Amino acid sequence: MTFLIVTVAWAAHIRLFQVIERIDDTLALLNLACMMLITFLPYTFTLMATFPEHILGILLFCACVMVIGLIQALIVLYGFSRPFLLSEQIQISENQSYYKRHILKVIMRVPVMCLIATIFSFIFFQLSYALLAIVIFLPYISQSVKWIRNKAIGQQWEESPESVLFYTYHPNEPLSKERVEAFSDGVYAIVATLIILDICEDNVPDPNTVKQQFNDSLITALQQYGPEYLAYFGSFVTVGLLWFVHHSLFLHVTKTTRLMGLLNTFSLACVGGLPLAYQLTHEFPPNSRNELEAIQISCVIIFFAGIFQLAIWVTALFLERETLHPYVRYGGRDHAFMLAKLGLYPCVALGTYFLTCALSRFSAPIFHLMQITVPFAFLVLRLLVQVVVALVRMLFCPARPRPAASALLVEEDGEEEARVPFNDVIT
Amino acid sequence: MTFLIVTVAWAAHIRLFQVIERIDDTLALLNLACMMLITFLPYTFTLMATFPEHILGILLFCACVMVIGLIQALIVLYGFSRPFLLSEQIQISENQSYYKRHILKVIMRVPVMCLIATIFSFIFFQLSYALLAIVIFLPYISQSVKWIRNKAIGQQWEESPESVLFYTYHPNEPLSKERVEAFSDGVYAIVATLIILDICEDNVPDPNTVKQQFNDSLITALQQYGPEYLAYFGSFVTVGLLWFVHHSLFLHVTKTTRLMGLLNTFSLACVGGLPLAYQLTHEFPPNSRNELEAIQISCVIIFFAGIFQLAIWVTALFLERETLHPYVRYGGRDHAFMLAKLGLYPCVALGTYFLTCALSRFSAPIFHLMQITVPFAFLVLRLLVQVVVALVRMLFCPARPRPAASALLVEEDGEEEARVPFNDVIT
Repeated sequence: MTFLIVTVAWAAHIRLFQVIERIDDTLALLNLACMMLITFLPYTFTLMATFPEHILGILLFCACVMVIGLIQALIVLYGFSRPFLLSEQIQISENQSYYKRHILKVIMRVPVMCLIATIFSFIFFQLSYALLAIVIFLPYISQSVKWIRNKAIGQQWEESPESVLFYTYHPNEPLSKERVEAFSDGVYAIVATLIILDICEDNVPDPNTVKQQFNDSLITALQQYGPEYLAYFGSFVTVGLLWFVHHSLFLHVTKTTRLMGLLNTFSLACVGGLPLAYQLTHEFPPNSRNELEAIQISCVIIFFAGIFQLAIWVTALFLERETLHPYVRYGGRDHAFMLAKLGLYPCVALGTYFLTCALSRFSAPIFHLMQITVPFAFLVLRLLVQVVVALVRMLFCPARPRPAASALLVEEDGEEEARVPFNDVIT
Repeated sequence: MTFLIVTVAWAAHIRLFQVIERIDDTLALLNLACMMLITFLPYTFTLMATFPEHILGILLFCACVMVIGLIQALIVLYGFSRPFLLSEQIQISENQSYYKRHILKVIMRVPVMCLIATIFSFIFFQLSYALLAIVIFLPYISQSVKWIRNKAIGQQWEESPESVLFYTYHPNEPLSKERVEAFSDGVYAIVATLIILDICEDNVPDPNTVKQQFNDSLITALQQYGPEYLAYFGSFVTVGLLWFVHHSLFLHVTKTTRLMGLLNTFSLACVGGLPLAYQLTHEFPPNSRNELEAIQISCVIIFFAGIFQLAIWVTALFLERETLHPYVRYGGRDHAFMLAKLGLYPCVALGTYFLTCALSRFSAPIFHLMQITVPFAFLVLRLLVQVVVALVRMLFCPARPRPAASALLVEEDGEEEARVPFNDVIT
């Protein structure tokens, strides 16, 4: 819940600064005030989780969100009072006051929901939690309601065409690609750093213990932590390679939509669970039932982190002309390679899961072996894909290798833009 | 030491990827391997600090650094074997193999030093620590030695002109401005987030304590933490505003040099000390000697964080034509304003320090009042600066207000580029 609420706040922040493209000192300070309140949110969640029967946590949370909403409204008002700060599309538009009202209306929805939640918390506080859950899915709910209404009464209720650009909650609404990348890179970097914090805290033996139990031999004392170092390297490699896949994918994404952003959030939420999974995998005695379960939980987390990345690409394929580089579109030069990259982790995680079910005695070695061999799989992946594609082509069209090749050639001719060298496009 | 060594590794990373501008999958994976070893460094430091008499910590550290150096050398070799990955300046140069040897030589210096430190650690391990300290200041030492030699024997030992661009360790060698900004933003963001972690960990009362001691009243239980919330908000505001000053400064910086990067590192090291200072300020009983000292330590940290930021600007002023936007150069339109922005925190910290010395009974209220009023000072700073500049002009040249204004006008006419609207230049 916390992760989702923070990402909702982050998405609101992106949308706000897609409208307001330049900032001055006042906006920078207002934004800092917003950030301060957002860093305070985890504390209110801790209070809620520790004291579920007290309404103080929920009241503090709602107060924070309401103040954040008010500051965002202030930012919008300030931005519209100095139009040179706005995005050019709005600067040249004649409907500035319409935009202003529309954006303020959208922004104020969340604080209003929180105000209602505050009031309900005095009467029947369980309802407040439900209302807060609605806040997260509000855009998707309101979009579905709109869609159903449109289908029911027909296309009569058409939105103003200009408003479609900002704050629409349409799944294909663009989301700043740079900021999605920066956010994801930040999450991956912090997760990778969190793993080492655990080691620094738990795996440094006490000097007295070393003297008394291990005859002052530090190496012997550290040897007991062997499996934990292995788990550390394995986890880091997994986080690093999931980032690598993410990076490869977003190198070929040319536009990010809201739906892709949501799937990315789900993938990141799974990645955020990896430090916990890492802690679990070495916390229990070897070959215990708990250890097996911890390893299987890790496999499930890795599987979903990978599957959601794959889902981003699949979603992008539906609008591939807008959202993807020609190379990874359907039939593009690197289509199969991208599929293999995105599919590797889900497949490996699934395979490891079933292997540990079958050979539960060897679950830890299997899991660690998997984590350490995957990087090599990535290194030879391009080669593997070429071999597999050649095999598939031989198996399914063995009689006409030439026609297939020429068909491919024709296709490539048709897709002229696919011939632009990749580096040129990227740079 | 840890912070400095990590920033040295980061600076090496920047320099490496100023030469290699594009990456492919192999380089991305090699870089991930580097990152993994770098996240392992804090653990080796913890071992060194906990077991100063054991050489295992230092051996592990040296092993990590040597492997990192080897991987960086691999990256260079791989990059030069595929020249389209290199920066354009090197791609078109005829001296590629000279560059390659020069860069490899510079990169391998650190692992070689570590190898020597490893060998010495078996004989006389204190010397190893000294060698590692030299690694940090190696560029500055080698630069000074070169400078002294040049002065002593005359200008006979001239470097190849082409090599000046990369890996020179000259204080004016450019450092990628984007990466300095990204690194600084990351440090500020993590510091700001660390502060709330302390609150989430320490300031959530135990449910049983609340039931027994506070009659099940959560608000009463939380009231005892009042000063800590104040300290939290104060610390966040301080970190946020130091970021704000940093952001304002780098908005007007057009090129970053190595020396500016070093000063920035010192400033960030002070900022990194703020969460500790925050913890200290509320750990001791009110009005105790310890509390007073904790508050004075905080003032000193804030003072140095601000002074090093000011030093960045002063350093930039020496090469202002290259490194600064005309507005903040000497005599530029916002010169006085930038000075006020950069000077505010050092002055306030110094003032608070002396006030707490004089009125030690009220040290905590004075400190918190300072932290909370500074944002308002920033809001009215531009106005204040205008008033002060007008006053100074009235006091020192009261008889000739016109000539002074016209002199300014002439100067502005001469500095034609200063008239370009700021937003145009920035965008």
